[in-house]
Amino acid sequence: MKKLKRSGRLVDMTNFMLEHPHQLVSLKYFSERYQSAKSSISEDLTIVKEIFEEEGIGELLTVPGASGGVKYIPTVDASAAEAFVHELCTQLQDESRILPGGYLYMMDILGRPSTMNQIGRLFAALFKDRDVDAIMTVATKGIPLAHAIGTYLDVPVSIVRRDHRVTEGSVVSINYVSGSSKRMQTMSLARRSLEEGANVLIVDDFMKAGGTAKGMVDLLSEFRAEVAGIATLVEAADVSERLVEDYVSIARLSEVNEKDRRITVEPGNYVNQLKEVLGE
Amino acid sequence: MKKLKRSGRLVDMTNFMLEHPHQLVSLKYFSERYQSAKSSISEDLTIVKEIFEEEGIGELLTVPGASGGVKYIPTVDASAAEAFVHELCTQLQDESRILPGGYLYMMDILGRPSTMNQIGRLFAALFKDRDVDAIMTVATKGIPLAHAIGTYLDVPVSIVRRDHRVTEGSVVSINYVSGSSKRMQTMSLARRSLEEGANVLIVDDFMKAGGTAKGMVDLLSEFRAEVAGIATLVEAADVSERLVEDYVSIARLSEVNEKDRRITVEPGNYVNQLKEVLGE
Repeated sequence: MKKLKRSGRLVDMTNFMLEHPHQLVSLKYFSERYQSAKSSISEDLTIVKEIFEEEGIGELLTVPGASGGVKYIPTVDASAAEAFVHELCTQLQDESRILPGGYLYMMDILGRPSTMNQIGRLFAALFKDRDVDAIMTVATKGIPLAHAIGTYLDVPVSIVRRDHRVTEGSVVSINYVSGSSKRMQTMSLARRSLEEGANVLIVDDFMKAGGTAKGMVDLLSEFRAEVAGIATLVEAADVSERLVEDYVSIARLSEVNEKDRRITVEPGNYVNQLKEVLGE
Repeated sequence: MKKLKRSGRLVDMTNFMLEHPHQLVSLKYFSERYQSAKSSISEDLTIVKEIFEEEGIGELLTVPGASGGVKYIPTVDASAAEAFVHELCTQLQDESRILPGGYLYMMDILGRPSTMNQIGRLFAALFKDRDVDAIMTVATKGIPLAHAIGTYLDVPVSIVRRDHRVTEGSVVSINYVSGSSKRMQTMSLARRSLEEGANVLIVDDFMKAGGTAKGMVDLLSEFRAEVAGIATLVEAADVSERLVEDYVSIARLSEVNEKDRRITVEPGNYVNQLKEVLGE
């Protein structure tokens, strides 16, 4: 790479940090990349850090010492997050989303990568200090959100299936009871797709009684893995008995009235939990 | 936003452009955001453009006129792309990937968001001028790659299912013949998840004879939609009759020898097609 002036270094360094979240980058690396003294690099990083923190892009942690360096931790600004959540609730209340049977059409939202990335950033900010090693979701609709969170936390995603796939080698399967339909179901995960002892964030697009989430918790124990948290985009409010307790939701669906064509969606518990993490 | 110096503007502007690929941003927007004259903003953008182009981050197109502005188009450097493809082929040749029946284990690669994003960027660079309106993939394994491409092209993703989902309203289904097993199968897409007349990029993780891709082409014609291209991560080489012709692959799997524990993977046609697009 050719020698750059400060202005050029700032552009390249910003791109580099954004592409390497949660990774420790040594000053030496930047010093060699830009053929510049470590003192200049430190000054550059101070500028990047200031803007990242002011604009709610993230934290830039400095790790001192010989093996030290700098680490970019994606975060969000609490008021921007709150505004986003309200806007999403408004979108979800659009009556054209009502499907026969009182279901809610969400594929447009789940299929919009920019929206998934924004929500992924929200969850990554909330779980930034929980030492998440991996993300687990169940096929199909949770996958985009799981990958978006995985991007910002820089951790891999394991996909649980509701069937047995013979093509992935040794598989661990469990039976679980769907909380809402009370039916017995099966979920499976390839043995090699999750490391033993991993600290795992469970992700799904929608949670009713929490049967699927509870199934994933049970599946994790088969892998001797830990539950770092449970994150869902939307939770249903009218649930008599919740099968999991400690979860985070962006939005809460309290009513789908087919007759009056009315959907009621309110913010979930995410924003309050974020404020606790941010100490606000 | 408080008034920033050039150094601060460059950091924020770089982040902003990276978060808004393929979107036209007016100079007026930046001028107001930073409370700076358009002439200063233009100078900032010249610096960002220079670094983006030198480092293979992307193009920064300037659209002149009253409704003009600047647009960030993610691209890749051809030699960096070539090195990445070779490294991926080496990873795929690891004999521990051999599964019973001669299948290849790829879930670790498909489950690594940073790798999916890199491959997503490769395809987004190749299809940057093809006016892609949407991406279509089939559940489950193609979803992470489809969303990664969608992120860099800023287009939505539609997920085709191999079953009928009653919860998504009106559904379009077709029968298709799997090229390798010759079995008749069904694929379905919710009517409202794709706009009529859209120009659609078909994405999958693996292509053998191309039966699934051909099915998606046929499904698109039911939506009066156009095929912008077909992108696959890995194609199988030993195919007597290919059901689709015009496709791009990152890697080509030519042999899985269970007995000798040997996998042979070579680069697909991606790099050559990229060089054509880049005029190299």
